[in-house]
Amino acid sequence: MNEKNEIASINSTSALRLQLQGIRLFSNCTPSFLDGLASRSRTQRLPKGQMLFVCDEKADRFFFVVGGWMKLFRETLDGAQAVVDIIPAGHIFGETAIFQNDQYPFSAEAAEESEILVMPLSILKAEIESNPKIALSMLKSMAHYRRLQDQELEHRTLQNASQRIGCFLLRLIDQESEGRVTIHLPYDKTLVASRLGMQPETFSRALAKLKASVDMEVRGATIELGNVQELSEYACAACSSGFPCKDVERSTIF
Amino acid sequence: MNEKNEIASINSTSALRLQLQGIRLFSNCTPSFLDGLASRSRTQRLPKGQMLFVCDEKADRFFFVVGGWMKLFRETLDGAQAVVDIIPAGHIFGETAIFQNDQYPFSAEAAEESEILVMPLSILKAEIESNPKIALSMLKSMAHYRRLQDQELEHRTLQNASQRIGCFLLRLIDQESEGRVTIHLPYDKTLVASRLGMQPETFSRALAKLKASVDMEVRGATIELGNVQELSEYACAACSSGFPCKDVERSTIF
Repeated sequence: MNEKNEIASINSTSALRLQLQGIRLFSNCTPSFLDGLASRSRTQRLPKGQMLFVCDEKADRFFFVVGGWMKLFRETLDGAQAVVDIIPAGHIFGETAIFQNDQYPFSAEAAEESEILVMPLSILKAEIESNPKIALSMLKSMAHYRRLQDQELEHRTLQNASQRIGCFLLRLIDQESEGRVTIHLPYDKTLVASRLGMQPETFSRALAKLKASVDMEVRGATIELGNVQELSEYACAACSSGFPCKDVERSTIF
Repeated sequence: MNEKNEIASINSTSALRLQLQGIRLFSNCTPSFLDGLASRSRTQRLPKGQMLFVCDEKADRFFFVVGGWMKLFRETLDGAQAVVDIIPAGHIFGETAIFQNDQYPFSAEAAEESEILVMPLSILKAEIESNPKIALSMLKSMAHYRRLQDQELEHRTLQNASQRIGCFLLRLIDQESEGRVTIHLPYDKTLVASRLGMQPETFSRALAKLKASVDMEVRGATIELGNVQELSEYACAACSSGFPCKDVERSTIF
């Protein structure tokens, strides 16, 4: 190995370590855990649509999204897909396989061209067993996720399709917003539709109905909302969380 | 206190301790934790419809269902209800409030006349902080619950209402069943409907459609199913878990 390569490699490991340190789940981890993780991780680039793993596959790695969007989904015997989550940059996924017989509970593919960090689950497992603080962090993050899922189920039960789109938009903005705002969709409309559990046609119809009900303009991935209050009255009346949304925490959910 | 009363009280604490010991989550707990819990717990009887706590209420207790059914739900600003879960005897609930700023993430009421054990959260909190094994048990149980919720969301996306009722019935039977079976609904049809996120009318229509599609007879809360295989082909083709269901674990769930 020449000197240049060596320096590049050290630099990159230390940059990696800094990135890992920023993950909230790891905030109470031991330095040796972070060192171990940084030295045994590798980055991987995935073109749009590339599968990373399939549901029930033996799990020995977990992942951190550096850039792009990863789609987690379940697939029925007859080939239909239900999206479980869309993971944005800055978040990890696949780690719960540890508690599910070391099998991934869903499939994962790149929703857009993505870059991910691939990390060995064995290191995380050892850290959880020896450091109660990380177990507590994981419990906290899982409880929060559970609440989001409860809310999602509530929406599927009580909100109509247009209200669900309205809710999706309201979660993308600063929860203290008032009046006119501009919203940028984080990914394409087909993916938004499948994240919301809708067929593309249902999504188009529901979006048209929403546009007819509140003051908004859609130009590609940009949405000009005339009045936040008007949309929140339309969407949040059929939700237990209200607006500002009690359940919004991570910057880009759903 | 007379002698008789004292003996009754000792007996009941030791019976309680035995019951607590049987809860899977507590299988790795210290004896002193179980002793503390048994001595500081009390039983409570709730008539059908009685509220136990409301969403976002300050949480200082968690609960074990001794008999009956407890309904967990979220309620919107305009008063509509979404059922989060129906908890049967032998299961605990409310414990995740520990990880959610000590607030209950849903409301709870007795779906039928019920008897519950009321236990202080502070004891569980102390045990989690000092005994990594219970944190791991909780993580395992939350990961399993998360998988069930993913599946529920999948069902809301991909199954029609009749398939969802079929799925509900199939989960009530021994997963190795074949041919003809008799199924007893665990609670009344209105509650089954709301557990499945359906209006009572939708439920009735979907049940009628299911009866027309597969060989089954409904007499009150008893359902005679002509052929398990026929129903599983009808319902499980639109699900990633198949039959026998990969996600059935506790005896009565969803």
